[in-house]
Amino acid sequence: MSSHDRPTIGIGMIGYSFMGQAHSHGWRNARSFFDPALMPELVVISGRDGAAASDVARRFGWRHVETDWRELIARDDVDLVDICTPGDTHAEIALAALAAGKHVLCEKPLANTVEEAIAMADAANRARADGIRSMVGFTYRRVPAITHARNLVRDGRIGEIRHVRAQYLQDWLTDPESPLTWRLRKDRAGSGALGDIGAHVIDLTQFITGEQLAGVSAITETFVKERPLSGAVHGLRAEVSEGRGQVTVDDAAVFVGRFTGGALATFEATRFATGRKNAIRLEINGSGGSIAFDFEDMNVLSFFDASAPATEAGFTRILVTEPEHPYVGGWWPAGHGLGYEHAFTHQAVDLLEAIAEGRDPEPSFADGLAIQRALAAVETSAASGAAWTPIELVAAPS
Amino acid sequence: MSSHDRPTIGIGMIGYSFMGQAHSHGWRNARSFFDPALMPELVVISGRDGAAASDVARRFGWRHVETDWRELIARDDVDLVDICTPGDTHAEIALAALAAGKHVLCEKPLANTVEEAIAMADAANRARADGIRSMVGFTYRRVPAITHARNLVRDGRIGEIRHVRAQYLQDWLTDPESPLTWRLRKDRAGSGALGDIGAHVIDLTQFITGEQLAGVSAITETFVKERPLSGAVHGLRAEVSEGRGQVTVDDAAVFVGRFTGGALATFEATRFATGRKNAIRLEINGSGGSIAFDFEDMNVLSFFDASAPATEAGFTRILVTEPEHPYVGGWWPAGHGLGYEHAFTHQAVDLLEAIAEGRDPEPSFADGLAIQRALAAVETSAASGAAWTPIELVAAPS
Amino acid sequence: MSSHDRPTIGIGMIGYSFMGQAHSHGWRNARSFFDPALMPELVVISGRDGAAASDVARRFGWRHVETDWRELIARDDVDLVDICTPGDTHAEIALAALAAGKHVLCEKPLANTVEEAIAMADAANRARADGIRSMVGFTYRRVPAITHARNLVRDGRIGEIRHVRAQYLQDWLTDPESPLTWRLRKDRAGSGALGDIGAHVIDLTQFITGEQLAGVSAITETFVKERPLSGAVHGLRAEVSEGRGQVTVDDAAVFVGRFTGGALATFEATRFATGRKNAIRLEINGSGGSIAFDFEDMNVLSFFDASAPATEAGFTRILVTEPEHPYVGGWWPAGHGLGYEHAFTHQAVDLLEAIAEGRDPEPSFADGLAIQRALAAVETSAASGAAWTPIELVAAPS
Amino acid sequence: MSSHDRPTIGIGMIGYSFMGQAHSHGWRNARSFFDPALMPELVVISGRDGAAASDVARRFGWRHVETDWRELIARDDVDLVDICTPGDTHAEIALAALAAGKHVLCEKPLANTVEEAIAMADAANRARADGIRSMVGFTYRRVPAITHARNLVRDGRIGEIRHVRAQYLQDWLTDPESPLTWRLRKDRAGSGALGDIGAHVIDLTQFITGEQLAGVSAITETFVKERPLSGAVHGLRAEVSEGRGQVTVDDAAVFVGRFTGGALATFEATRFATGRKNAIRLEINGSGGSIAFDFEDMNVLSFFDASAPATEAGFTRILVTEPEHPYVGGWWPAGHGLGYEHAFTHQAVDLLEAIAEGRDPEPSFADGLAIQRALAAVETSAASGAAWTPIELVAAPS
Repeated sequence: MSSHDRPTIGIGMIGYSFMGQAHSHGWRNARSFFDPALMPELVVISGRDGAAASDVARRFGWRHVETDWRELIARDDVDLVDICTPGDTHAEIALAALAAGKHVLCEKPLANTVEEAIAMADAANRARADGIRSMVGFTYRRVPAITHARNLVRDGRIGEIRHVRAQYLQDWLTDPESPLTWRLRKDRAGSGALGDIGAHVIDLTQFITGEQLAGVSAITETFVKERPLSGAVHGLRAEVSEGRGQVTVDDAAVFVGRFTGGALATFEATRFATGRKNAIRLEINGSGGSIAFDFEDMNVLSFFDASAPATEAGFTRILVTEPEHPYVGGWWPAGHGLGYEHAFTHQAVDLLEAIAEGRDPEPSFADGLAIQRALAAVETSAASGAAWTPIELVAAPS
Repeated sequence: MSSHDRPTIGIGMIGYSFMGQAHSHGWRNARSFFDPALMPELVVISGRDGAAASDVARRFGWRHVETDWRELIARDDVDLVDICTPGDTHAEIALAALAAGKHVLCEKPLANTVEEAIAMADAANRARADGIRSMVGFTYRRVPAITHARNLVRDGRIGEIRHVRAQYLQDWLTDPESPLTWRLRKDRAGSGALGDIGAHVIDLTQFITGEQLAGVSAITETFVKERPLSGAVHGLRAEVSEGRGQVTVDDAAVFVGRFTGGALATFEATRFATGRKNAIRLEINGSGGSIAFDFEDMNVLSFFDASAPATEAGFTRILVTEPEHPYVGGWWPAGHGLGYEHAFTHQAVDLLEAIAEGRDPEPSFADGLAIQRALAAVETSAASGAAWTPIELVAAPS
Repeated sequence: MSSHDRPTIGIGMIGYSFMGQAHSHGWRNARSFFDPALMPELVVISGRDGAAASDVARRFGWRHVETDWRELIARDDVDLVDICTPGDTHAEIALAALAAGKHVLCEKPLANTVEEAIAMADAANRARADGIRSMVGFTYRRVPAITHARNLVRDGRIGEIRHVRAQYLQDWLTDPESPLTWRLRKDRAGSGALGDIGAHVIDLTQFITGEQLAGVSAITETFVKERPLSGAVHGLRAEVSEGRGQVTVDDAAVFVGRFTGGALATFEATRFATGRKNAIRLEINGSGGSIAFDFEDMNVLSFFDASAPATEAGFTRILVTEPEHPYVGGWWPAGHGLGYEHAFTHQAVDLLEAIAEGRDPEPSFADGLAIQRALAAVETSAASGAAWTPIELVAAPS
Repeated sequence: MSSHDRPTIGIGMIGYSFMGQAHSHGWRNARSFFDPALMPELVVISGRDGAAASDVARRFGWRHVETDWRELIARDDVDLVDICTPGDTHAEIALAALAAGKHVLCEKPLANTVEEAIAMADAANRARADGIRSMVGFTYRRVPAITHARNLVRDGRIGEIRHVRAQYLQDWLTDPESPLTWRLRKDRAGSGALGDIGAHVIDLTQFITGEQLAGVSAITETFVKERPLSGAVHGLRAEVSEGRGQVTVDDAAVFVGRFTGGALATFEATRFATGRKNAIRLEINGSGGSIAFDFEDMNVLSFFDASAPATEAGFTRILVTEPEHPYVGGWWPAGHGLGYEHAFTHQAVDLLEAIAEGRDPEPSFADGLAIQRALAAVETSAASGAAWTPIELVAAPS
C-alpha cells in the first residue's frame, strides 16, 4: 500500500500540447492511483517554446524545462523518454533516445513512413538486448472495455473470428471554411484521417483479435480540396496568411480486408461523418459469440455469448466499471465510469511494470511498424483504383 | 371514409410460403386500415401443393386456389399477379403475366441473373404503353422510418452525401450443422447472403440517397463449405437424404464502393454475424446532417441536423409513430409501434394507388435490374481478387 | 397443420372504434397465423351507428351487423361476446352476455367502479360452473417480451422481488387547447390517466411478479383544469360546442406502494410526459437478478442475471423475436419484430385455447376487480392528502 | 494563458479516503486544466492515521501532513478547509474552520441531523459578512450534462415543470453476507441509501428545476436486517469480530412528492437494484420539452424540444463533449468523454472563482440544510406509515 520505498524512474517528456498534457496527466496519475513497481518522477519537459513548456511544467509538476530535446535526452536524471511531438519527428528522436540507452514511449503513429518505422523497430530490437524497453502509444488499447474485449477473445469466448467491422468517425472537417492546418498537409502529417484515426482502429482490431490484417482494397477521398490558409493553427500561420491552399491528405478512407485467420473486415476512418465526434466503433463476430464497442459509450462492452439458451441470449451490456475489470480497481468504487484520459494512466502503469519486470511492453515498435505497413497498403490500393493490396506481415519478435 | 363504393381489383397470388403469407396479410390489411382508391379482392392463390395452398387460402381469405400458375394468370377475375415464388421462377412468370396484360408485383430479387432482369425490365417498359404497371418488392422501403429518411434526404436536410454505410447482418448459418437448403445452392438461389439480404441494403441506400452505386471492390466468403443434406427444407429432402453437400453460394459479402454523387460506401451482408438476427443498419452522412437506422429498433429514425446550435446538436431519436409520418396514420394512435409486416401493407397500398392514378409505381423493374447489376458487379469483383468493378448505370425510364 | 376440420366458435363484437378494430384484427389473425383448437368465425359486429359499423365489417370481414347489442347477444350463432365499448357500459353488457350463456372477452378496465367490477366478477364466477369463460383485455400481458419477463420471474431467475418501478408515460394532453373529450370527464371515463393507462402498469407488474399491490400513497393532478369544448371528439360535440369546460379527471397520478411479498414500488401514469408517446416502462429488481422493459422498444427484454461472473454480468438485451419465445413462432422468421397490435392476436388465441380446453383464461374478471380496487385506493389516497391506503386483496378463485 | 503570476490559495484537506482522493485530484487538476483566478496550493492534508495520510500526501502532492485536524485549521498557510470526513464530524470541523476565518468546502451530506445543519448554515451566513465563503460538495451538479440540463431549464427551454422522476440505483448490498460496516449503522451514518445517495438526487432535481421539494409520502425498507460483523471495513472490525449485527439504516427509500411549482415527483434511492451499479437517472417533463439523464451514460443529455415539427421531434442525444458545453473546454478536444471524477475539478474551479470574485458559491450551506430537511421529512413520513409530510422551505439568503 505504501509508496514510500518504491524505486523511481525519471521521465523526460518531449512535447507539451494535447498529447503532452495527456501523458503528463498519465504519469502523475500512475503515482496517485496505482502502485507501480517503479514510481515515475516527472523530471523534465522540453519544448521549443520555453515559456509555453514552462507553463505546462508548472501546471503538471514537471521539475525542469528544456528547449532542446537533445539536452533532455542527454540528462542523467532521465531514464525514459516520452515522445509527444508530431509524427515527422518521431524517428529522429526515438533513435537518439534509444542510442542514449533510454527507454522510449513514442506516440502513435510510430512514424510517417514505413522506412522510418523499420529503422525504429530495428533500433528497438537491438536495444532490447541491453534491457532497453520501447513502446508505441496506441493508448486506446488500455480503455478497460477494449482490454476486456481482448481478454474475452483471447480466452476463446467468441470462438473463431469471422467478421471485423471497425469505424473511427469524426466530423470536424465538414465545415469547408475550417483552415488548412499542418494536419491537412502530407509533408507534415503523412496522411489524413487514415493515419491519424484509421491507425487506431487497425491497431485495435489486431489487438483484440490477436491476428493481423493481411490485405486491403481501399478508397480514399478528399471532399474539400482547398481550404483557407488564414485562421490556421499549429504554426501554419507563419507560412502563409491569405488565400486558400491545397489539402494534400485524405479526408476519409474506407477499405475491405482480410485478417490472417480468414475473417472479413470493413474499415472506415473519416473526419466527415457529420454528428459523430469521436466514435470508435468495433464489432467482431466469431463462431461462438460477438463483442461490440462504441467509444461514445466507452465504459460499456457488449458481449454476445452464443452458448446461452435461445430464450436468454442477447448482447449483454457489460458496464466495465467493476474492480474485477482491467485497470478499474485503481480508480473509484464500482459503477463510477472513467473518461478518455484514463487510458494514458494505464499505459504509463503497464510500461512501468514491464520495465520493472524486465519484459517487453506492448504494443512494440514492431507492432507500430505493422500498422505503418497497413496504412501504406491502404494508400497503395487507393492510388491504384482500389486494387487488392497485400500487407507484409510482421513476425513476432523471437 | 366508407369503403362501400370503391372500385375493386382482383389479386392473384403465386406462392404461399413466408412471402406469400406476408403478401396475403398486406393485401387484406390494405382493405382494413387504408382507404385505397382500388379495393383489393383476394381472388385466387396458386401453389403446386394444392392442399397447402388451400390451407393458406382458408387462413387468409383467398376465394379460389389453383395448382398451376398459368391457370391463375389466365383468369379473367385476376387483374394483378403477385409473384411470391423463389427467384429462379420470377422471369418466366412475370413475362407471362405482363403478356397477358396483368399488372405485376414481383418479389425481390427481380431475377437470378442480369439477363433475366433485362428481359423483365424490357417487358415492363413495353407494357407501360398499355397502362400495365409493374413493381418489384423491395418492401423495406416502406418501413415508415426508412421512407421518412428518404424524405429528409430528398428535402435537402442532410445536404450533399459523403458517406454511406450499410449492413444487413444475420446469424442463422453460424451453426455448421444447419442443413444445405436450396438457399445455399447457386443454381437455385443465384447467390447467398449477397442476393438475399445484400440486395436489400443496396436498394435502400439507393432509395434514400436518390443516387446509384457506381462501382465496388468486394470480398465474399463461404465460411462453412459443406453442410448436411439431411434435415434439409424447401424440397431439398426429395433429392438427397444422407451425407454432406457443397455450399455453392456466399455466406457473406463485404464491399466498398462509390455512389454516383461521389459518396464513399461500405456494405456488408452476412449470415454469420453471431447475435445479429435481422439487423439492417444504415447510416448516411451528408454535408448538412446525417440519418441512421437499425431494423432492430425499426420504429426509430436517428437524425442529426448540423444546423442546430452546438450545445443542442445531437442525433434526435425520432419515434416514427406519429400520424404525420409516412403510412403511420392508417394504423393506431401515436406511439403505437409497427412491426416487420406492416411494410407489406404499405407496399400494397402504394401499388393500388399508382394503378388507380395511372402512374408507375416504385421500385420499378428497371430499379430491380439496377440492383441485379450491382449484385453481379460484387460477384465479378470478388471473383477477380477484389478488383474495382464499375456498375452499368440504369437510366431513369423516359 | 391444416385448418380444414377445426371446430369453430362464433364471435360477436360490440364496438367498432380503436379497440374494435384491434380486436377484429386479432380474431382474424388468430386464424391466419396460429392454429387454435377453436377457429374463430367473425360472425357479427354491433354499433349504434350502423353505417360506421358496416364499414368496419366490410374492412375486417364481419359477416353481419347489428345496431343493438342486445340483438347481438341474443343470436344463436354467437358463442363469445367481445366487449369493446367504453368502460361505463361494460357491466351491463357483460352481465347480459354471461346470463345468456356466452363466453365474454371484456376490454379493460373491467368497469368504472369497484361495485360494478364486483358484480361482474361474481357473475363470471357463477358462470364458470356452466363452463362459461370470461377474460378481461389487459392485452399488454401478451406482448412477447412481457410474457417472457413473467416466465423468467416465475421460474425464479430474479429471485425474491425487492423493487418494482413502473411508468406509463404519454404526452397527448400537454397542449392546453386539446379539447375536452369524454375521456376527460369523470362521469364517462371513471378516471383519467390513472384508469386509462395506470391500470395497465398495475396489471403488468402484478402479472410479472405474481404478487398483488397491497397499499399505496398517491398524488394526482389535473394540470390543465379547463379545456375548449369545440373541436371535441367522441360525441362530446353534440352536447356543447362553444366555450370551455371543466376537466374532471386526473391528468397524472404518481404513487408509491408495497407488494404482498414486501417489494417497494413506484408508479407513474401521465398524459403530460412531454416527448413520451406510449412509454410503458417496467423494471423489477430481485435478489437474483432484474428485468427491464420499455414499450418504445417493445421487442426487447433486458435481463440481468446476478449469478453471472462479475466481469461478464450486465443487462442482456434479449431480442424477443426467436421462435422459442412466447407467441413468436406463429409469425415470421427469427429477428422480424412485432408491433403493438400483435398482442391482440395472442389474446384471442389464448382465450380460444382456454375455451377449447375447458379451463379459465387469464386475466380473469377477478383480476380485473383487483385492478379496480387498486385504482380506487389510489384515488382515495390522493383525495386524503397522499395518506397510506391499503388495497383489499382478491383471493385466487378456488 | 500563463499560470505564472496567479495569486494562490492554500488548501488544507481533512480526510484521505475515497472523497479525500477525489478532492485531491480535483484541486490538482484545477491547476492543470483550468485557469482559475486563484491557483490552489495543496498545502496540508490531515488524518488520524498519519502513515496513511502521508502515503496519500506523497501520491497527490500534498506538502504537509497533520494528524489533528485542529492543527490543520490553525495553520497560517491554510486559507481554505476542505472537509472529506464522515458526516458525523462535519459540523464540529466546519464550525471551527469558519470561526478561524477559513473558507470551507464540506462534503455532502452537510450534516447528519437538521440541527447540526442549521448551526452550520447559520455560521456560514455569519461568516459571509467577513467575506468567508462556504460550499457543500454536491459534486454531481458539475457533471457537464447536468449543468447543461440546468441551463436549458433555466433558459425556459422545457417550460413549466410538470414531472420530476429521479432514481439513484445501486446494488452493492444485495449480497446478504456483505458486512455490517459503519454505513449501515444509524449512529454513524445518519441514514442509509436515503442520505448517502438519495440526497444527491434531491439536490440535483432542485438544482435543475430551480424549485424546492415541498412535501413527500415515503416508504423505506431494510431488506436484510442482520449482517455479519466479520469482514467488516471502515474500522468496524475493531468493535466486534464475530456473529451478526443489526442493520439500523434503510436499504432503500421510495417517495412521491410535490415541488414548489406544482410538479409531481417520484424518487427512489436504493442499494438493492440488482444490476444497477451507480445509476443516477433523472427525467424532467415540462410544458415545452423534457430533459433526461442517466449517469451510466454520463456524457449524454437527452433533450426533447416540443417546438420541433412533429415529424422531426424526438429526444436528441446531446453528446455533452463540445467546447461550448459547461466545463468541457478545459479538457480535451470535442468528443473525448469525461468520467466520474471530473466534476470534482469543476467544483474546485467554481469555488476558487467565487472566492476570487468575492461572491457566494453554490450549493451553499443553506442548500445543504434544505436537503437535510427533505431527508428528515422522508424519514418522518416513512415512520408514520407513508403519511404526507411537508418540508420546511429554506429562503434564499438575502
